[in-house]
Amino acid sequence: MRKDMKAEKTAITPTRHEDYPEWYQQVVKVSDLAENSPVRGCMVIKPWGYALWENIRNVLDDMFRETGVKNAYFPLFIPKRFLEKEAEHVEGFAKECAVVTHHRLEEGEDGSLVPAGPLEEPLVVRPTSETIIGESFSRWVTSYRDLPLLINQWCNVVRWEMRTRIFLRTTEFLWQEGHTAHAGREEAMERTRQMLDIYARLAQDYLAIPVVSGEKTAAERFPGAVNTYCVEAMMQDRKALQAGTSHFLGQNFARASEIKYQSAREKEEYAWTTSWGVSTRLIGAIIMAHGDDNGLVLPPMIASSHVVLMPIVKKAKDRNLVMDYTHALALELRELRYHQRKISVEIDDRETGAKGWDWIKKGIPLRVEIGPRDIAQDSVFVGRRDRGLRDKESIRRDEFVKTIVPVLDDIQKNLFDRALRFRNENTVNIDSKDDFYAFFTPENPATPEIHGGFALAHWCGDQGCEERIKEDLSVTIRCIPFSDNTEPGTCIVCGANSSIPVVFAKAY
Amino acid sequence: MRKDMKAEKTAITPTRHEDYPEWYQQVVKVSDLAENSPVRGCMVIKPWGYALWENIRNVLDDMFRETGVKNAYFPLFIPKRFLEKEAEHVEGFAKECAVVTHHRLEEGEDGSLVPAGPLEEPLVVRPTSETIIGESFSRWVTSYRDLPLLINQWCNVVRWEMRTRIFLRTTEFLWQEGHTAHAGREEAMERTRQMLDIYARLAQDYLAIPVVSGEKTAAERFPGAVNTYCVEAMMQDRKALQAGTSHFLGQNFARASEIKYQSAREKEEYAWTTSWGVSTRLIGAIIMAHGDDNGLVLPPMIASSHVVLMPIVKKAKDRNLVMDYTHALALELRELRYHQRKISVEIDDRETGAKGWDWIKKGIPLRVEIGPRDIAQDSVFVGRRDRGLRDKESIRRDEFVKTIVPVLDDIQKNLFDRALRFRNENTVNIDSKDDFYAFFTPENPATPEIHGGFALAHWCGDQGCEERIKEDLSVTIRCIPFSDNTEPGTCIVCGANSSIPVVFAKAY
Repeated sequence: MRKDMKAEKTAITPTRHEDYPEWYQQVVKVSDLAENSPVRGCMVIKPWGYALWENIRNVLDDMFRETGVKNAYFPLFIPKRFLEKEAEHVEGFAKECAVVTHHRLEEGEDGSLVPAGPLEEPLVVRPTSETIIGESFSRWVTSYRDLPLLINQWCNVVRWEMRTRIFLRTTEFLWQEGHTAHAGREEAMERTRQMLDIYARLAQDYLAIPVVSGEKTAAERFPGAVNTYCVEAMMQDRKALQAGTSHFLGQNFARASEIKYQSAREKEEYAWTTSWGVSTRLIGAIIMAHGDDNGLVLPPMIASSHVVLMPIVKKAKDRNLVMDYTHALALELRELRYHQRKISVEIDDRETGAKGWDWIKKGIPLRVEIGPRDIAQDSVFVGRRDRGLRDKESIRRDEFVKTIVPVLDDIQKNLFDRALRFRNENTVNIDSKDDFYAFFTPENPATPEIHGGFALAHWCGDQGCEERIKEDLSVTIRCIPFSDNTEPGTCIVCGANSSIPVVFAKAY
Repeated sequence: MRKDMKAEKTAITPTRHEDYPEWYQQVVKVSDLAENSPVRGCMVIKPWGYALWENIRNVLDDMFRETGVKNAYFPLFIPKRFLEKEAEHVEGFAKECAVVTHHRLEEGEDGSLVPAGPLEEPLVVRPTSETIIGESFSRWVTSYRDLPLLINQWCNVVRWEMRTRIFLRTTEFLWQEGHTAHAGREEAMERTRQMLDIYARLAQDYLAIPVVSGEKTAAERFPGAVNTYCVEAMMQDRKALQAGTSHFLGQNFARASEIKYQSAREKEEYAWTTSWGVSTRLIGAIIMAHGDDNGLVLPPMIASSHVVLMPIVKKAKDRNLVMDYTHALALELRELRYHQRKISVEIDDRETGAKGWDWIKKGIPLRVEIGPRDIAQDSVFVGRRDRGLRDKESIRRDEFVKTIVPVLDDIQKNLFDRALRFRNENTVNIDSKDDFYAFFTPENPATPEIHGGFALAHWCGDQGCEERIKEDLSVTIRCIPFSDNTEPGTCIVCGANSSIPVVFAKAY
């Protein structure tokens, strides 16, 4: 057992159980993912966090491309009149948008700089780009031959949120937004569902987070959409987190932006459009799905880095030997591929005793200690982040190199299985109103955050019943899950007949 | 000779010689790179243009990473007080910045939406991020052990330009901005020069554009910098285009943002910082360095795509044969790598006669026609974009696959050689003021854009002489080139002694 592992205490104070929201903030901090900036509600994404986002981007980009989607870039600013074109849309976003009103700063009467050069029309910093991209689409589409149009953009967006929480709800965030136009309802609907499936694959196969796919109720729909579909994940406080949405926009935005095409039968028709997106919020999901009381736990498929090599040098005379061995091993590992990318290796040669702890907190899948005794046996001392901190073993170097890919796969699988088990343990079928209210009422007032889970219960479809639950319990319908089986039951609120159970939960 | 190649006319009207600025706009349009948006001065980068930017990003990212730089992301908005911290800096950018003053839209008295929720402090949309990144650096750096700090971000920036031109000068543009902090002047200066060298490599080895590296005069410096270094390229109208800058910021921004570290000798010192960037303006450079009167010409190393396969089907019965052959070839080509990336293959199966012209205009390096007669001989009909449009040849399919990499390399080399030859032909040493003024005065008033070039002439170092030339001829000092040789001479304006010739040119 190495010295830095002797401590019994956990790295994060408070623990998840003690104070889940504060535990989350502490993990973000000690893992060096990101920090709040002095700009209200905006975050600074640090290299360890940004690498996660780059890996997510690369994975999605490949999946999008395989379905024919191409990347492009549209303006940051949306003229006010564009936003106003779709009534529900502007209603949804006008309350929380950054407005540019001037185009320079000038010295004012008191000598300080004041906004000058007022704009004739205010510009809104994009909260989402349906309206500005619609304007381009209206010029790009004239005939059915121009369709489908399959475009995606990676960019920043701004929504002026009153209560912000790093990664989960920030004024500025990074995302991708896909926008497509089609000659026909069915094709657009198929695309909407196809992109949702990609988000489910991203969550399950890469982020190691099981998700429920389904449709949002009218109350939870994207402003201006006909249908909104989503993938919902369970965090360790048993709350739901929406991990991606895909919207079928019908002809609403095509009408607003005049996206028209001449059909094969020479009739002029409005196009059918879709939009779909995921954001840096996914990083919040990774933290809350896998993190533990010692910090972040990263799934190997999107980990910022796969393995850290920590040379242990206690006597100056060993230094060259240990460093050479370390660098040679790094070189060998970097030649290997782990699925779509190369194995990413960190070398931590700082002269400090707490190296191991730092990397545990950062959630790197594999930690490798290399000291003179290990080298004498041509072996390395390996710890896996998905196992106990003391559960480390000496492995022959050649064996370690040979098995690193299957070991990473095993970690990936363990994280998914653990998250799935947790979700299953905290998902219940509920038929009675009393049980439902009890399920969502904290057992222990000292830890109000830890209660509930996913309740599969019947809902009659009435918005009044949905609102009642929301008002009483702050619980919402996360989705109406896709399912071939209908199952008769009665609404948890009013007792009316219902054919499909829905997923209720508290949510981020 | 195929039908679509019979035309004698050029694809672009006007030609470069007839009206260079208008030729540029037309190339941007017909090559489908980008378009102006209805948002003043902002552009829409279409997939063919965005792919160029992604390729540039990937190349630079690898080069940056090799030198230890890591990517991160900082807020879009800069509080006004941050910008004001460095006097020259705010002076340089206050005149052209988008100012956010409100955080929602509300229904006004006339029923239209008006800005509401005034901010206590206006926010500026970042024109560059020295001040906001400096704020983070000031918290991240405490000891010399935290240095160097090597950070880069890929993002959008906004500068409210009065006269805009797509890619070259737009209100919003995409760029990368690197920011580093060091414990010592020399190390910071080395980093400044190292990054400039990377930009020179990007330009020469990837964009196939020869550049002159050197230092800017005080008048052309980045606002707040101690030294600004640049790489300068010659466009086909013989004007200069700045293709990257790297700034040595001394301790100016460290003082403004309080970036301080404890030295090894336990003394508190201000860090030394640098910043460096290239932008989507490089796409303008590619167009103007290589484009011809038939459109865009893309260097293979960063081309949006390498080769287009055009199945030629005139009889329905041939369709399956031709399509199968085409797809099999695409599959084979896509397995190959061209330097850092896979060979990128387009298949154009539209039933139109003008396919060849479309791809010529888009500048793809290789065009391959595949018809039943070609297939009968197991050969393909290949055109290279760096050669005459009619200069196409039949090549055995296996030979084509085997040689595609060296052929792409040959195209890359040809483009560079051609651009270098052009620059050399239009670079002159000038010793007399009369010759200098004649060199920069249009020979033919009908084509005022086509004259001049790079003039290597002596300058005494006086800002008055520099201004005189700028006022009289709209010619500026592009850079003081790096050179070990000093060469005595006299200032082109005042006749005073000078030891180093500088590069004068008109510029974008």
